[in-house]
Amino acid sequence: MIVVMKVDASSEQMARVITRIESDGYKSHISEGDERTIIGVVGESPTPLKEENYGAMEGVDKVVRISAPYKLASRTFHPADSLVPLNGSKVGGNKVVVIAGPCSVEGRTEIIEAACAVKEAGATALRGGAFKPRTSPYSFQGHGEKGLQWLAEAREMTGLPIVTEVMDPALVPMVCQYADVLQVGARNMQNFTLLNAVGESQHTVLLKRGMSCTIEDMLMAAEYILAHGNMKLILCERGIRTFEKATRNTFDLNAIPVLKRLTHLPVIADPSHAVGYSEYVEPVARAAVAAGADGLIIEVHPNPAEALSDGRQSLTPQRFASMMEQVRRIAEAVGRTA
Amino acid sequence: MIVVMKVDASSEQMARVITRIESDGYKSHISEGDERTIIGVVGESPTPLKEENYGAMEGVDKVVRISAPYKLASRTFHPADSLVPLNGSKVGGNKVVVIAGPCSVEGRTEIIEAACAVKEAGATALRGGAFKPRTSPYSFQGHGEKGLQWLAEAREMTGLPIVTEVMDPALVPMVCQYADVLQVGARNMQNFTLLNAVGESQHTVLLKRGMSCTIEDMLMAAEYILAHGNMKLILCERGIRTFEKATRNTFDLNAIPVLKRLTHLPVIADPSHAVGYSEYVEPVARAAVAAGADGLIIEVHPNPAEALSDGRQSLTPQRFASMMEQVRRIAEAVGRTA
Amino acid sequence: MIVVMKVDASSEQMARVITRIESDGYKSHISEGDERTIIGVVGESPTPLKEENYGAMEGVDKVVRISAPYKLASRTFHPADSLVPLNGSKVGGNKVVVIAGPCSVEGRTEIIEAACAVKEAGATALRGGAFKPRTSPYSFQGHGEKGLQWLAEAREMTGLPIVTEVMDPALVPMVCQYADVLQVGARNMQNFTLLNAVGESQHTVLLKRGMSCTIEDMLMAAEYILAHGNMKLILCERGIRTFEKATRNTFDLNAIPVLKRLTHLPVIADPSHAVGYSEYVEPVARAAVAAGADGLIIEVHPNPAEALSDGRQSLTPQRFASMMEQVRRIAEAVGRTA
Amino acid sequence: MIVVMKVDASSEQMARVITRIESDGYKSHISEGDERTIIGVVGESPTPLKEENYGAMEGVDKVVRISAPYKLASRTFHPADSLVPLNGSKVGGNKVVVIAGPCSVEGRTEIIEAACAVKEAGATALRGGAFKPRTSPYSFQGHGEKGLQWLAEAREMTGLPIVTEVMDPALVPMVCQYADVLQVGARNMQNFTLLNAVGESQHTVLLKRGMSCTIEDMLMAAEYILAHGNMKLILCERGIRTFEKATRNTFDLNAIPVLKRLTHLPVIADPSHAVGYSEYVEPVARAAVAAGADGLIIEVHPNPAEALSDGRQSLTPQRFASMMEQVRRIAEAVGRTA
Repeated sequence: MIVVMKVDASSEQMARVITRIESDGYKSHISEGDERTIIGVVGESPTPLKEENYGAMEGVDKVVRISAPYKLASRTFHPADSLVPLNGSKVGGNKVVVIAGPCSVEGRTEIIEAACAVKEAGATALRGGAFKPRTSPYSFQGHGEKGLQWLAEAREMTGLPIVTEVMDPALVPMVCQYADVLQVGARNMQNFTLLNAVGESQHTVLLKRGMSCTIEDMLMAAEYILAHGNMKLILCERGIRTFEKATRNTFDLNAIPVLKRLTHLPVIADPSHAVGYSEYVEPVARAAVAAGADGLIIEVHPNPAEALSDGRQSLTPQRFASMMEQVRRIAEAVGRTA
Repeated sequence: MIVVMKVDASSEQMARVITRIESDGYKSHISEGDERTIIGVVGESPTPLKEENYGAMEGVDKVVRISAPYKLASRTFHPADSLVPLNGSKVGGNKVVVIAGPCSVEGRTEIIEAACAVKEAGATALRGGAFKPRTSPYSFQGHGEKGLQWLAEAREMTGLPIVTEVMDPALVPMVCQYADVLQVGARNMQNFTLLNAVGESQHTVLLKRGMSCTIEDMLMAAEYILAHGNMKLILCERGIRTFEKATRNTFDLNAIPVLKRLTHLPVIADPSHAVGYSEYVEPVARAAVAAGADGLIIEVHPNPAEALSDGRQSLTPQRFASMMEQVRRIAEAVGRTA
Repeated sequence: MIVVMKVDASSEQMARVITRIESDGYKSHISEGDERTIIGVVGESPTPLKEENYGAMEGVDKVVRISAPYKLASRTFHPADSLVPLNGSKVGGNKVVVIAGPCSVEGRTEIIEAACAVKEAGATALRGGAFKPRTSPYSFQGHGEKGLQWLAEAREMTGLPIVTEVMDPALVPMVCQYADVLQVGARNMQNFTLLNAVGESQHTVLLKRGMSCTIEDMLMAAEYILAHGNMKLILCERGIRTFEKATRNTFDLNAIPVLKRLTHLPVIADPSHAVGYSEYVEPVARAAVAAGADGLIIEVHPNPAEALSDGRQSLTPQRFASMMEQVRRIAEAVGRTA
Repeated sequence: MIVVMKVDASSEQMARVITRIESDGYKSHISEGDERTIIGVVGESPTPLKEENYGAMEGVDKVVRISAPYKLASRTFHPADSLVPLNGSKVGGNKVVVIAGPCSVEGRTEIIEAACAVKEAGATALRGGAFKPRTSPYSFQGHGEKGLQWLAEAREMTGLPIVTEVMDPALVPMVCQYADVLQVGARNMQNFTLLNAVGESQHTVLLKRGMSCTIEDMLMAAEYILAHGNMKLILCERGIRTFEKATRNTFDLNAIPVLKRLTHLPVIADPSHAVGYSEYVEPVARAAVAAGADGLIIEVHPNPAEALSDGRQSLTPQRFASMMEQVRRIAEAVGRTA
C-alpha cells in the first residue's frame, strides 16, 4: 500500500500516518518528492491494512493498493490450473466442457427430452433451474424441489450431471442432495450469506459474474467460497451491463484471458445470457472458446417459443448440435478438444 | 404489447402469432404498413403476456412492451403519495427526514455517542449496520445480534428509531425484534428470497437501488415486497456504477424526479455512498433535497479515520450539523421543512 | 509516478528501469517490500514521463501516476476561482448565470421571439445552434451563417450575448464574428483539431463534457484550450452515458463539486440534455445550483412540439420563467443570486 | 412509428396527433386498448417523421420507432455483403485481412522496419499514425505530412497499402494523396464535419466505433459517409467504455455478429485498443475471427518499451507472427483463410 500525502500536508500529519503504520505492525518507507511525499507501507502484520482509514486521515490525498485483495483465488497462491471434476472430465483441463439445457425445468417430460437431446449432441452436463430468480414477482418462479427430482430422473436416464441454481442459503443442503453443481446466479454474486453457505457445503460451485461486478469483485466473491476450504469452484463470465442495448448484456470477452492470468480457477462462458438472442449464440460461443474459455453453458429448449423463461435466447436442439460442431473445430484450432 | 413482424414474415407466421394472442385470451389489432405488419395486443386476460415467447416465434422481429411491468408500485395504481411513518414524521410528507449514523455499529459506547450527536443535529432516525456486506471475506463483518442490542440501547437513550440492514432471509424475524426499519442493501436489491422475507415481515423496509439496476428494476424489486401486502416501503437512490472513477459511484440525480413521477412510494437519497468522499457529501445532499428527495441517509462517525468501514465517506458530527443547516435552507427553498 | 515491479522481476529488469528513470532526468527511490519492489520516480526534468513505456518494460507489473496530468486547469496552478465575463456578470462569481434559448435557430422571427422571452424571465445570455451536430444525416443540420446573422439581430434587440456551437475548425474565425461564446459540443470534446482552433481564437469558450468522457478527460480537453493562452473557458456537465435508459443521459451531479475542487474554471450544468424530458428539467436545474454550479444552460422553445430539434426536452417560456423563480430561491439558499 | 397516448389523454389531444400525422403525409392506424390508445403511423411521405416532436405533444406518453433510422447501411437496402478492395484481397470476402503496424509513425527507419516485419508475417496492409489524437496536449502529436511521406516510402518497399488516421477535415485531400485507407478514429466517430469530408473524398474509409457509441450510432455515422455515394467503407469494433477497469476498454464481441446481421459493410476488430495490454491481444484476436470478423487491425512495434504511443498494447514482430499463426488456424476452423 502507498499513502500519497497532499501537497500541503504538514509534518505533523505525516508523523501521524507513520505512527499509525507502525502501530498496525508495518514499516513505512518515505519518499520525498519535490512536490509531495509518498509513504510506502511494507512488511507483514496480522493487522489487515484498511485503506479507507488511511484515506480518511488529515493530510492524506489518496491511498494506492499494490497487492491484489484476494489470496486463495490468485495465481500467486496457486500457480497451476485448478481442475474441477465433472462427468469424467476435468473443468480447466484440455477438454472444453459444455453444460446445456433449458433455462427452467418446466416438467418431467420436457427436462428428460432436453437432457437426451443435449447428451446426443455431446454435452458434458445438464443445466436447468428449479428455483428461478425473476425480475417480476408475477413471472414463473420455478417448480422447486419437484424440479430437482425431475432433474435427478434426467440424470439417471442420461448419466449427465446436474447444474442448478440455488438462491436461498437455507435451501443449500436440500439442493445439494440433488445437484452435482450448485449455481450461484449473477444477481446473487455478492449475496455474501449465500456465498458462505455454498462455501460451507463443500459442493462444486459455479459462480456467475454479477452484471455490474468487476473482475476483481468476482475474485473477491470467489474468495468467500474458497475461504471455507471449498476449492471446487468454476467461474462464469455471462455479460455485463453497459449502455449498449442491441444485445441483452455485453459479453466481456476480455475477462476470459484476464481471469485465466489472474486466477487458477477454471473459467467458462455463458453466451446465451451474454448476448440474449439465439441468432448470436453460436458466434459468441466460438469466440469464447477461441479466447481460452474452459467451457460453455448454453440454454437449449425443444421449443423456444413455448419456454417458460428465456425463450428468446434458447437454441433448439438442432442448432445446439450445429454449435457443438463449430465449437469442436475451434477447440481443435486452439489445441483442445470439445 | 406490440408485436413487430419481420419485413419478410409469411402470412402463416403472422397467423400463428394471432392464434397465440387469442389463445392467451387477448385480441389482436393488425396494422399493415407498406414495409411490415405490426400487431397490437389488446384486452385483458388472466394469462400474463410473455414477451420473450412472442419474440422467439418465427417471423417476429421484435416485441415492444407498452405498459409498465409493475402495478402496485405505480402511480396509476395509487395516485397519491404514500406516507410511511417514522419517528412522528411521515416519510413522503412535507418534512425531509434525515437518517444518520455510522456505517457499522462498532461498539456500545460508539453507537450511543453517534446517536446522541446525530440527534442533537436534528436527525430523524439512527442508522448503523450490525450485519455488514463486505466485498472481502477478510473485512469486519459486523457484530451481529450484539450490535442490534446496542442499537436498541441507543434508541432507548435518544428516542431515535433504528434503520439497520438485514442480509439473511432466515434472520429477518430476529432483526425485526430490534429494528424499526429493515434495510435491504444495494447488493441484495435483486435477492428475491430476501425481498420475499422482508415483504412477509410486514415491517417498514428501506430498499436501496442496486448499483447496476435500472429504475424499472428497482420498481420491480419494490413490487416483490408490495405483493406481500407490505406497503411500508421507502426507496433509496445511492449511486450507480459507471465508467467515472473520480467518485465511488455516480449519483443518479435524475432518478429522484423520475421515481417521484412513476411511483407513489417515498424516495430518499444516500449521498455518502453515491459519492464516496466526505468532502462531497454536503453538496450532493443539498442537491438531492433540491430535486425533491423525501429524505437523506448519511454516514456520520465520531472519528472517520478509525471507522471499521466507510471512513472515507463519513462526516464528523460537526460537519453533519453543518450539513443539516444547509439542508434546512434548501428544504425551505422548495417549500418543505427538514 | 510509481513503478510497481512484478513479484518475480529480476534484478537486471529492475536495473533497466532505474537506468531509464535516470536517463529521463529523474531520480529513483527504491522501496523493497517482502513481496515485491516499488520504485518511486521523483524530481523534475524537461522529459515528460511516459507511463506506457515503463508499463511495457519487462519485469514491470504496473505504473501508478500520482500527479494530475493537467496543469493549467488545476487549482494547484491557479488556486483562486477564474471569472469569465458574460453580459456584465462574471461566470464563476456569486451570480448564477442562465443561458437559455432554442436548440436550433429555426428562423429570424422564432429566435427573436425566444430571445425576448428568455430575457424577460431573467436569462443572462441567449443560446441557439446555427450548425447542428445531428446523429442522422437526414435530420435538419442548421441554417449556418444565416442562423448566426439572426442570432446577431436577436442580440441587438435584447442585449443578450450569444452562445452558439462551432463544429468545423475552419469555421471558427467566421463564427467568432457573430458569437460571444463558442460552444464545443459533447461529441467534439475530444476533437483536438477543434480544441486547438478555439484555443487559438482567444474567444470565450463553453466546453461540454463528452458523454463517455471522465472528469479527467474533460480537464485534459480544457488543457488543450488553455495551452493556447485562452483562459476564458467555461466547463459544462451535461450528462453521461450509462445503462439507465429512463432518461436521455445520466446527469453526473457529483461532477459539479468534484470539478469545483479540482479546477479554478467555472462550471455550469445543462439539465436539458442531462435528463432529456422537459418535465424533469426544473428539479435537475435546482439540484445543479444547490450543488454549486456557477450557471445553467437551458433549452427553451416557444412551441416544443414544433421544434426542429430537441423538442422533447425544451421548456416553454412560461415553464422557463417558473424555473427561474425556483432557481433564484435555491441560489439564495446557498448564498448566491440568480 | 407508433405513438402511445397517455392513459388520460383527451380525444382532442388524440385528434391533434392524427391531424399532424396526416399533415406529415402519413396514415394513422388507431388501436384502442382497454387502458390506452396506440396510434400506428403507416405509409410513405417525403416528410421525415420527427419522433421528438410527437413526443413533445400533449397527451402523448411515448413514441416507439419501428424501422431502423439508417438506410444505405442496412441489409434491407443492400442484402449482399459489400466487398471493399484492399491489396488484392476484398475486405468482407473469404479472406480475413490483417492491418498491422505501429500506433505512430516515429521515423523513416522505424516505419520501414515495421512494414517489413508485418509483411513477412503475412499482414495485408500497414497501419501507422502521422496525425495522433492524444488525450494530453503535451504528448507526441505525430510527424504530420512527413510521417505520411515515410509511410509512402514503406509502401513502395513492401507493397503494403497504407491505413492512416485523418483528424482535420481540411487535411482530407492532402492525406488522400498518401493513404490507401483513411481512418476515422473513435473520438471522431461523431465528428460530422469530418464524416462529410471523408465521404466526399470517395476514398476508402475505416470507421472506428466511438467508445460510448451504440451499434446504431455507428451505423448512423456510416450513413453520413455512404450518403455521399462513398460505399468503400469498413467498420471497426475497438472496445467500448464500461465500469470494468482491468482492461483499457471492453471489447464488444457481440457487436461483430450483430453488425454482420444489420449491415452489408465489412466489419473488422481492433484487439489492441479493445484490451489495451499486449498479453491479451492474441486471445482477443482469435475470438474476433471466431465470431466472424472480416479482419483485424493490430498494433505492432519493434520495441514496445520505446514506442512514442500505445507501447503497452503493442505486440513485438515475433508475437505478431505467432498471432498470425493462431489466427490462420481459427480462420480455417470457420471456413475462411487469413
